Amino acid sequence: MSTTAETIRNGVDTAQLYGTLDALKADPTLATFQFRARNRWIDGAHNRTTIRDFYAANQEDTSRAEEFVVDAGEPAILLGTDTGPNPAEYLLHALAACLTTSLVYVAAARGVHLTEVESTLEGDMDVQGALGLSDEVRNGFERIRVSFRVAGDAPEEKLREVVARAQQRSAVFEMVTNGVPVTVDVATA
Amino acid sequence: MSTTAETIRNGVDTAQLYGTLDALKADPTLATFQFRARNRWIDGAHNRTTIRDFYAANQEDTSRAEEFVVDAGEPAILLGTDTGPNPAEYLLHALAACLTTSLVYVAAARGVHLTEVESTLEGDMDVQGALGLSDEVRNGFERIRVSFRVAGDAPEEKLREVVARAQQRSAVFEMVTNGVPVTVDVATA
Repeated sequence: MSTTAETIRNGVDTAQLYGTLDALKADPTLATFQFRARNRWIDGAHNRTTIRDFYAANQEDTSRAEEFVVDAGEPAILLGTDTGPNPAEYLLHALAACLTTSLVYVAAARGVHLTEVESTLEGDMDVQGALGLSDEVRNGFERIRVSFRVAGDAPEEKLREVVARAQQRSAVFEMVTNGVPVTVDVATA
Repeated sequence: MSTTAETIRNGVDTAQLYGTLDALKADPTLATFQFRARNRWIDGAHNRTTIRDFYAANQEDTSRAEEFVVDAGEPAILLGTDTGPNPAEYLLHALAACLTTSLVYVAAARGVHLTEVESTLEGDMDVQGALGLSDEVRNGFERIRVSFRVAGDAPEEKLREVVARAQQRSAVFEMVTNGVPVTVDVATA
């Protein structure tokens, strides 16, 4: 019998994962996080977000070596010049990324070795809403379809359980399905 | 009197904008859009989304010269290696980008020349939810605060009206505040 436990699974350090869970159970105040983004308009549909600092575990996190820079835009048909994906596409990306990371972490915790996780997302939108032409249709997606393809060393039933559990735990899935209260303040110069 | 109308305002071609609105009024079927994203897990919290094709105005749009590639990750405290912003931060980016583009387009349509649009977003999260430690807290942000700083050639009251109208029309603001039905399908290999 081997006494060496595998700690890295699916690229996730499960020893650190369990350590984090134990620390949060011992002191739930460590679970208070705040994430941030700063955006600046450049021209037309082109704007840019920088992301770096956040608050976690009772302090400002300073671990990131540099800021992330993310550009948004619109395609020609929506009056842009493709300076980046559009905001609605970024929402699909946020949803895909969160479901995938949740799935990978859940699989790691349950001893499932994954070999492949791919997803395609589609969001249907009647742009009459966002363009102010109709109050009968909503501004955003009417619905979003996510299709996962998952492979690993577990039976199909277990893989499906992992996806279902990831869906129950994903922060972005929960926000996109239930909505979040948003306040908007304005200062004029 | 000048007979040359300004058409480009805030980087937005207002002649094209009005032309688009007229075309959609004449044939509302042109307003049916579908946006898409494809995501692939790489390792641990690292996954990558590609975005290119979409459906618009009764056909597949082929105008984009190349695909966009967007990487997600997690910081060390959430078991990642900072391969990109995390999914919740991308949701803040999507919201900031959509409000900003809506604001810029509304201002262009109303004859307001903008000189500056900046925003900071904060999302508060108790990670006990997403980590499965508590069913008492939600998985996603409890609330999101958006602070805009807007400057332009209009009086403060007009600038505030433009922000308010942008908020009423933003697709991502509407989705994040109201939620969207999401279906998840799984195929196992």
